[in-house]
Amino acid sequence: MIKFLDLQQLNLGYQEQFQEKMKLVLDKGWFILGNEVKSFETNFAHYCGSKHCIGVGNGLDALVLIFKAYIQLGKLQKGDEVIVPANTYIASILAVLQSDLVPVLVEPKLETYNINPYLIEEKITSKTKAILPVHLYGQLCEMETISAIASKYNLLVIEDAAQSHGAISNAEIKAGNLSNAAAFSFYPGKNLGALGDGGAVTTNDDDLAEVLFSLRNYGSEKKYHNELVGINSRLDELQAAFLNVKLPNLDADNDKRRSIAKRYLSEIKNDKIVLPTWDFSNNHVFHLFVVRTENRNDLQDYLLKNGIETVIHYPIPPHKQKAFPEWNNLSFPITEKIHDEVLSLPISPIMTDDEVSIVISILNKY
Amino acid sequence: MIKFLDLQQLNLGYQEQFQEKMKLVLDKGWFILGNEVKSFETNFAHYCGSKHCIGVGNGLDALVLIFKAYIQLGKLQKGDEVIVPANTYIASILAVLQSDLVPVLVEPKLETYNINPYLIEEKITSKTKAILPVHLYGQLCEMETISAIASKYNLLVIEDAAQSHGAISNAEIKAGNLSNAAAFSFYPGKNLGALGDGGAVTTNDDDLAEVLFSLRNYGSEKKYHNELVGINSRLDELQAAFLNVKLPNLDADNDKRRSIAKRYLSEIKNDKIVLPTWDFSNNHVFHLFVVRTENRNDLQDYLLKNGIETVIHYPIPPHKQKAFPEWNNLSFPITEKIHDEVLSLPISPIMTDDEVSIVISILNKY
Ligand SMILES: Cc1ncc(COP(=O)(O)O)c(/C=N/[C@@H]2[C@@H](O)[C@@H](OP(=O)(O)OP(=O)(O)OC[C@H]3O[C@@H](n4cc(C)c(=O)[nH]c4=O)C[C@@H]3O)O[C@H](C)[C@H]2O)c1O
Ligand SMILES: Cc1ncc(COP(=O)(O)O)c(/C=N/[C@@H]2[C@@H](O)[C@@H](OP(=O)(O)OP(=O)(O)OC[C@H]3O[C@@H](n4cc(C)c(=O)[nH]c4=O)C[C@@H]3O)O[C@H](C)[C@H]2O)c1O
Repeated sequence: MIKFLDLQQLNLGYQEQFQEKMKLVLDKGWFILGNEVKSFETNFAHYCGSKHCIGVGNGLDALVLIFKAYIQLGKLQKGDEVIVPANTYIASILAVLQSDLVPVLVEPKLETYNINPYLIEEKITSKTKAILPVHLYGQLCEMETISAIASKYNLLVIEDAAQSHGAISNAEIKAGNLSNAAAFSFYPGKNLGALGDGGAVTTNDDDLAEVLFSLRNYGSEKKYHNELVGINSRLDELQAAFLNVKLPNLDADNDKRRSIAKRYLSEIKNDKIVLPTWDFSNNHVFHLFVVRTENRNDLQDYLLKNGIETVIHYPIPPHKQKAFPEWNNLSFPITEKIHDEVLSLPISPIMTDDEVSIVISILNKY
Repeated sequence: MIKFLDLQQLNLGYQEQFQEKMKLVLDKGWFILGNEVKSFETNFAHYCGSKHCIGVGNGLDALVLIFKAYIQLGKLQKGDEVIVPANTYIASILAVLQSDLVPVLVEPKLETYNINPYLIEEKITSKTKAILPVHLYGQLCEMETISAIASKYNLLVIEDAAQSHGAISNAEIKAGNLSNAAAFSFYPGKNLGALGDGGAVTTNDDDLAEVLFSLRNYGSEKKYHNELVGINSRLDELQAAFLNVKLPNLDADNDKRRSIAKRYLSEIKNDKIVLPTWDFSNNHVFHLFVVRTENRNDLQDYLLKNGIETVIHYPIPPHKQKAFPEWNNLSFPITEKIHDEVLSLPISPIMTDDEVSIVISILNKY
C-alpha cells in the first residue's frame, strides 16, 4: 500500500531530535510562550523574510486573529465584506465569519484552482475592505494582479498561506510576505507540520504585530494587565520546539515534492487525467498534487484496488455545505466542477522513487 | 528559595512516562483527535461523574464553546446577559464577551472570594439567561443556592471549573457536574496541568455534547462535511496522552494540597494575616492558598527576601482593566479590597513538610 501521506514515517525520522527537545523543555519546566516559541517566531519570520512572526494555536485562529486585530486597529469593521475564493478549504471562510465579517465568494481559474483575479473587481462594493487569496494546494495566487486591485480600491490583502510554506514568487518573495499579513497552519499534514495543532501570522506591520501578540494571550502583553478583549490561542512551547527541528528541512522537503511533481507531470500520460498547471518555478510547493478526471470516484477506487491511497481535496464546495444554508442555491460552476473532479495523488518528502514509479505506471494503465 | 509552584520538579516526576507516551504517539503517527484524546475524554468524564467530556484547546475556549453551542441550540441569543463574579480571572469575562453575550458583574463574599449568591437576584433582568459561577482558587461556589435561583428564573448555569478539578460537594458531586455544563483548563499550573495549553467541557446534556464535538472541529463531525460554523479548538493528542498519565494522581494531589492547607490554617498565627475560610470538606482543592493582608506588597517583599516566592491572584480587578473602559468607573468595593489584599502562598503536591514549616515560621515572624 502506498500511503497518501505517511506521517508516521515522516516524523519517525525526527524521533531522536523530538525526544531531545521534549527532554529540554521538561528540564526547563516552561511550557507556555517560552524560548522555543520565541526562537521559532524569529526563525520563521526570517525564513519568510517578514519582520514579525506571531505563533498561535492553529491556522484558522491565525486568520481570525488577523481580522480581529485589524478590527481593533480600526482598519476593518464588523460587517465589512471580504473577497474569498469559492474554492478553498472551509476554514478560510469560517475565519471571516468568526470575525463578524462577510465573505464574498469568487470563482477560481480551472487551470490553477486559485482565485481568478479578473473576477474580483465585479464583486467589489462600498463595503469591501479586504481580499483573502488562498495559495491553494501550495501554489501562489496571482499576487501582482491582486495587489494592484487592492491598491486601486484601497483594500487590505491577507494571505491564507496554510498550504504554501516556502513558495517563492518570481520576484523572489516568499508566501507570507506578499501581502499585509499572512496566516500559516502547522497542522501535522502541512509542508511544515507540528505533532498537533499550531499556526502563525507573519507580517511587516508593527502595529498589527503588537496587537496580535496581545490578542492571542487574553489581550495581555504584561501578565495580569489586560489592554484588549483577547482570546487564548498560543503556539505550544513543545510544538514550537518540534517545528524548530523541522524548519531547516523545509526547503529540501519542498524541492523533493517538486521533483515528484515533475515526474508526475512528465510521466503520467493518460487522456482521462488532467494534470495541474505549473511553470516549474518555485511558486509551487506541492502541498498537494491534484489531478482532475471525469469519473473521479471510479479513479479513486481503481487506485485503491491497486494499493494507492488518495484523498479528495475537497468533496463538497463551501457554498454547498449545510453550515451555509443561505448559499446552498448559489451557483459556482467552476468551483463545483473542481469539487466533482479533483483527486490528490500521494506526494511527500519521504516518498521513494519506486513508489512514484508505481503510481505513474498504475495511472497510465487506467 | 521556596518556589511558588515548582512545575519543573512536578513534571520531572513523570518524565519517563511522558517520554513513553511521546514514543507511543510517534509510533502511531496520529496527532489530532486520536485514541489518547478519546480515552482522556472517557477518563475525565468518568472522573467527574459526567456523561460527556469534550477535549478542547484551552479553558477560555471551553467557556466560549459552551456559550456558542447554547446559541447554536437556541438556548442563548447574542446580547443575552450572563451573571459573572466581579472577582475572577479575566478569562471568565472574556469568554462571555467573545460569545457576543453581556457580562453582568456580581460582588463576591469576602470570606470565600466566590460570587455572593444573595446578590445575584437583584442583577437579574428580562435579558438574563445564564449564571457563570467560578469556583475560584479551588473552592466550590454555593451551588445549591445558585441552582435554586437559576430554576426560579429559568437560567442556565455554567461552571467555570478551571481552578477546581476534583472538588466535591457535600452531596458528593464533583466540580464539572454541578450545572448544565462546565469548563476546565489544563494550563500547566492547574491542579491537573498539561505540558502546554488544553481544556475540556463536561456535561450531561446530549444535545450540547453533540454540538460541541462538531463546533470544536470546524463545525464538522464527519470529515469534509461542515454542518455548523465552527472554530478550531482541539485538545492535542500529545497533551491528552500526558493528562492520561497525570489524572490517576489527581485525587492524591488534591489530598496533599488539602493537608498543606490544614497546616497553614492551624499553624499560621499572625494577626496581620487573614486566612481563607474552609470547612475542611472536600469542596476545596486548594489550587491556590490565598491569604489577605493590609500591606500586601510589603508582605510579598518580606517573604521574597526570606526566600519564599508568592503570586498575586490577581492584582487588577477585571472592571479596572483597560480592556473594559466602560466599567472603569464602576465600584465593586469587596472585589477591589480582595485585589488589594490577596497573596497566594506556595502550595503544590510536591511541596515538602519542611518547606511548609519554613513558610509558616517566616509568616509567623512577620
Ligand atoms: C487553506 C487553509 N486555510 C486554513 C486552514 C486551517 O488551518 P488549521 O486550523 O490549522 O487546520 C487550512 C487547513 N487545512 C487542512 C485541510 O486541508 C484538511 O487537510 P487534509 O489533507 O484533509 O488532512 P488529513 O486528511 O487530516 O491529513 C492528511 C493525511 O495525513 C494523514 N494523517 C493526518 C494526521 C492529522 C495525523 O496525525 N496523521 C496522519 O497520518 C491522514 C491523511 O492521509 O483538513 C485538515 C483538518 C486541515 O487542517 C487550510 O488548508
Ligand atoms: C477561572 C478561570 N477561568 C478560565 C481560565 C482560562 O483558562 P486557560 O484559557 O486555559 O488559561 C482560567 C485560567 N487561569 C490562569 C490564571 O489563573 C493565571 O494563572 P497563574 O497562576 O497566574 O499562572 P502562571 O503564573 O503562569 O503560573 C503559575 C506558576 O507556575 C509557574 N510556571 C508556569 C508555567 C506556565 C510553566 O510552564 N512553568 C512554570 O513553572 C510560574 C508560576 O509561578 O494565568 C494563567 C495564564 C491562566 O491560565 C481561570 O483561572
